[in-house]
Amino acid sequence: MPMSKPTQVPSRALRRSIATVSVSGTLAEKLAAIHAAGFDAVEIFENDLLYFEGSPADVRRMAGDLGLDIVLYQPFRDFEGVAPERLARNIERVKRKFDVMHQLGTDRLLVCSNVSPETICDDALAAEQLGALAKAAGEAGVTICYEALAWGRHVRTYGHAWRLVNTVNHANLTLALDSFHTLSLDDTPDGIAAIPGERIGFVQIADAPRMQMDVLEWSRHYRCFPGQGDFDLADFTAQVVKSGYTGPLSLEIFNDGFRGAPPAATAADGHRSLLLLEALTRETLAVEHVEADALYHPSAAPANAQWQFLEFAVDDTARAHVANWLEKLHFRRAGQHRSKDVTLYQHGLAAIVLNAEPDSFAGAFFQRHGLSLCASAFRVDDARLALERAAGFGYLPFSGRVGPNERVVPAVQGPDGSLNYFVNEEPGQPTLFEADFSLTDIDGPVEVGPIIGIDHVSLSLPAGSFDSWVLFLKSVFGLEASPAVLVPDPYGLVRSRALMSRDRGLRVVLNASVDQHTAAAETVRAYHGTGLNHVAFNTGDIFRAVTEFEAAGVPLLRVPANYYDDLDARHALDPAFLDSLRAHNLLYDRDERGGEFLHAYTETLDQRFFLEIVERRGGYDGYGAPNAAVRLAAQARQRALAAQEGSASQD
Amino acid sequence: MPMSKPTQVPSRALRRSIATVSVSGTLAEKLAAIHAAGFDAVEIFENDLLYFEGSPADVRRMAGDLGLDIVLYQPFRDFEGVAPERLARNIERVKRKFDVMHQLGTDRLLVCSNVSPETICDDALAAEQLGALAKAAGEAGVTICYEALAWGRHVRTYGHAWRLVNTVNHANLTLALDSFHTLSLDDTPDGIAAIPGERIGFVQIADAPRMQMDVLEWSRHYRCFPGQGDFDLADFTAQVVKSGYTGPLSLEIFNDGFRGAPPAATAADGHRSLLLLEALTRETLAVEHVEADALYHPSAAPANAQWQFLEFAVDDTARAHVANWLEKLHFRRAGQHRSKDVTLYQHGLAAIVLNAEPDSFAGAFFQRHGLSLCASAFRVDDARLALERAAGFGYLPFSGRVGPNERVVPAVQGPDGSLNYFVNEEPGQPTLFEADFSLTDIDGPVEVGPIIGIDHVSLSLPAGSFDSWVLFLKSVFGLEASPAVLVPDPYGLVRSRALMSRDRGLRVVLNASVDQHTAAAETVRAYHGTGLNHVAFNTGDIFRAVTEFEAAGVPLLRVPANYYDDLDARHALDPAFLDSLRAHNLLYDRDERGGEFLHAYTETLDQRFFLEIVERRGGYDGYGAPNAAVRLAAQARQRALAAQEGSASQD
Repeated sequence: MPMSKPTQVPSRALRRSIATVSVSGTLAEKLAAIHAAGFDAVEIFENDLLYFEGSPADVRRMAGDLGLDIVLYQPFRDFEGVAPERLARNIERVKRKFDVMHQLGTDRLLVCSNVSPETICDDALAAEQLGALAKAAGEAGVTICYEALAWGRHVRTYGHAWRLVNTVNHANLTLALDSFHTLSLDDTPDGIAAIPGERIGFVQIADAPRMQMDVLEWSRHYRCFPGQGDFDLADFTAQVVKSGYTGPLSLEIFNDGFRGAPPAATAADGHRSLLLLEALTRETLAVEHVEADALYHPSAAPANAQWQFLEFAVDDTARAHVANWLEKLHFRRAGQHRSKDVTLYQHGLAAIVLNAEPDSFAGAFFQRHGLSLCASAFRVDDARLALERAAGFGYLPFSGRVGPNERVVPAVQGPDGSLNYFVNEEPGQPTLFEADFSLTDIDGPVEVGPIIGIDHVSLSLPAGSFDSWVLFLKSVFGLEASPAVLVPDPYGLVRSRALMSRDRGLRVVLNASVDQHTAAAETVRAYHGTGLNHVAFNTGDIFRAVTEFEAAGVPLLRVPANYYDDLDARHALDPAFLDSLRAHNLLYDRDERGGEFLHAYTETLDQRFFLEIVERRGGYDGYGAPNAAVRLAAQARQRALAAQEGSASQD
Repeated sequence: MPMSKPTQVPSRALRRSIATVSVSGTLAEKLAAIHAAGFDAVEIFENDLLYFEGSPADVRRMAGDLGLDIVLYQPFRDFEGVAPERLARNIERVKRKFDVMHQLGTDRLLVCSNVSPETICDDALAAEQLGALAKAAGEAGVTICYEALAWGRHVRTYGHAWRLVNTVNHANLTLALDSFHTLSLDDTPDGIAAIPGERIGFVQIADAPRMQMDVLEWSRHYRCFPGQGDFDLADFTAQVVKSGYTGPLSLEIFNDGFRGAPPAATAADGHRSLLLLEALTRETLAVEHVEADALYHPSAAPANAQWQFLEFAVDDTARAHVANWLEKLHFRRAGQHRSKDVTLYQHGLAAIVLNAEPDSFAGAFFQRHGLSLCASAFRVDDARLALERAAGFGYLPFSGRVGPNERVVPAVQGPDGSLNYFVNEEPGQPTLFEADFSLTDIDGPVEVGPIIGIDHVSLSLPAGSFDSWVLFLKSVFGLEASPAVLVPDPYGLVRSRALMSRDRGLRVVLNASVDQHTAAAETVRAYHGTGLNHVAFNTGDIFRAVTEFEAAGVPLLRVPANYYDDLDARHALDPAFLDSLRAHNLLYDRDERGGEFLHAYTETLDQRFFLEIVERRGGYDGYGAPNAAVRLAAQARQRALAAQEGSASQD
């Protein structure tokens, strides 16, 4: 077996495979992308072979040249449970495929449970015919991997498939598992551990968002990489490992988005999703499980992570513009970088860095994207470990130019090319800000403003990179994701998903526009592919905050009066409280446990992003999703007004 | 009640309405688009009011200025079947909405059946509480329209809702119908006719493609205008008319695509979809039904329609290029236009016109789209009637410059701006070709080639115009649509749907790319929004046809050998027949009744469109859908090769 490249895992590692159907392109493009992503094995999906203008032996050579082992050919359909007179024909059909497999150089064939309405419901007959199949496979030197499709006519669960395989009891007939088929039916994977691992011939892994739809359609269009959907795949994979299975873990993802996306990026995400799955499986398995050693073992996710600062790429004009907004929000100019044209603003724990240094990463980012969020810095307990973990998942480490006495801060590039710094402060040492900045001397105590710190950052993403970001935030920071929601903008739908750390020190909201004319879509275009949607600051007293900010001239987004009438009809609020909300353009939400969320938005800054002030009461843990459509409509109005006035809605 | 504009229907016409949620934009934009499309009434969807920065009275004025009557406010949720102590609160809630309605100037409120898990399953309780609601409504001068949601907790069918309404028996409580809620559950609409029409307060109409998914999700994202989906709405509406209902027919369409599309075009399609529904309902109703007079009555759809010619916009270079291809396909140069730079090519009944006249519609089309299909001409029995019908559905009539003695040919513009001519030939009169062209004299008999005529034309469309085309072909030509299918291209998915006339004289296939990198998407970009995908010619002997065309130098698209191996495994074809298919790069399909389809494709012409040769055997009525992915993969290979060679794949 050819080895592709050195890996970071022990030699006992499970092999990492992916089905060719999971990425786009011609077969040659698919294999090249799969190899480059770090996989060492591949399943050949039959249609990819049918469309290929060359022989199966050519495919074998092509894969071999890339160090990719062809570990499975698939699928073969509608074999078992047929009328006896059809069996001979089916054996004839499968023998043609054995010939193809010999040329491909693979010895595993996936056979799916029969979906035909004519299938006979008779386990004895099915077992007898699978026995005939096993015999033919044995003669051809091939192993059958028999899989229960969730929509099979009679055989739908791995338990049922295993009973048949176990009844036949032939070395050339094994069980194939696919996480989607098990978890989509809410079937428990708990029985997998009891199946002898050597009788499991192949394991396919797919995640999916929870959807209430026909399982076949769901499977064909909405599968995604582990970690991008809602299934508990670590539990599933732990059962597989406990069985003693040592064959490949293989991604088989039918996803409409992947079909239209560049294959290299898709394959790279696929590989890191497998690494993340292995890491989570390892955590799930009891420590004494020696098989866990075969799983990827990354450095631990950063503990106690929180925002250290947000860095904007600016030029002189943009800096003046943003600084003006920050000052109205009572941020103070806290320092000037010792060697670069970089300014630090602070209010409470919230820190904003404006980087106008032309000959720098920020300068290049400004050239490409204009005023934009070019870097995020995260305070972590161990920056070196955080970098090691991120790099292990295949994210690109970055080192920028540093001046004398300045701190070297490790960073990786995120899916949009922006930087993510990991910062740790050592007791007794100068802080990063002290090391790099000439800090403004304060005479007397610093006035305490209403902002506590950064509550969350919301990003507007191209639709194609949404799930890449989910994987990035989960793998690098160990964040957890809430289910995705759809929010109506007046000009289309926006898909939105929140990710947060267990201690809620980090919260990120991802938005991607489904349609072309929403504000989120315009933001993505304005930034040329990368885009901050907004930064939310939290406060302990939102009424004080908005009163002070309005007095300082911050234009708050106006909320229609009709919203408050409806709020009253829904929540029956105290009239005085409702009046206060209305007077300050505050939005309101309440959760089932009585937690409350009060929030206000600024108008849009530079036609790109905006700011939010939030107050969480009583453990409220959401983001005011019921109000998102109200906000989007108000922003659409603001944009329309700005367009009418023929001028940007800047201050 | 203000009248908006003169209509073509008698004064007894049902009023045509649409819910504001059906189109995109701010409330002002929505109302303007709805008015411009020809509606005279509108439902205000509550969220549109909540997002509106102005009072309900402002909305009333805005609608009134446009001559739009607000016929319904909606929805009010979760009223009936609650614990008695909640009733007072619900009455309080609804009274707030009555206040809003008075300001809006509307007296109908849609109340949906309760979806809350806490709803009490007790019809007597529900009726009692609906009685209280009716009483409050009566006091406020409001009529409640009670609707069974398909996903209601206990009340899911109109039959159940009607039992409750009938039990309460109060003038201010009526039944609301919605075609989606009835047809999505496969509930029969047959019981509607028996309900007294004056007890039906409101009727909402929505179509949808058949989908196996959760009915709530299906309803919220995939509704479409009547005629664009798979429901039998003419039957539903006929039952409504038979009941004696005389209120509005109102479109309520939740559609993700419409949310992102320009409101004017969406509203225009909505209005014509209602006209088409009325016309089809009229056909469904027995002629003696006097109520049918209230329905739109268009001129009859053209009978015996077939392709007369396809007209391409060309310049000299493009003409030489296309002519070269046509000649290889044994088309003959049959004539030259008497006054314009226009050439006619014919082979069998297939006629192609190449229009290089700069100062013409074709010239303008060429300027905008390059080499492209700028017009299609249809032979019909009565061209004047056909034009009248098309114009009645709101399609723009077109008259071009004509020379002396040339025929005036009526035309309308299709959704992409291309022309659709209606041609009829009178016995004893010169044909259109004779009138307009100087026809080439033929010495002796014309050689009979293998092409019989045009089998079908396939168009590549921007995704947003797909359903507009379905409506265009159904309303103007009376075509019937098959269900849509998804076809995988190596770089994404393509949605495809065939429409055809009852006698199969006209067949059109519509394709829209779901993703950005497919061949279909590239075609749409190449044409700047309008695009022929291919023209299929039929033949009675495809082996003769491809042999002759290959000998003449037509490059046929190569089909991979693996395709034939799989074909053999699937169909067990006669070895000699299989060899012939393989030798000629022919694709093959067989239907369940033994009908067969043999077809071949040319390589792509000018990187835009291509040609297909098809032979239908034994009544085969499809388009070889199982082979579409093979063809798309082969074309992707051809494009990749052409890109590698750095040159277009022209001859």
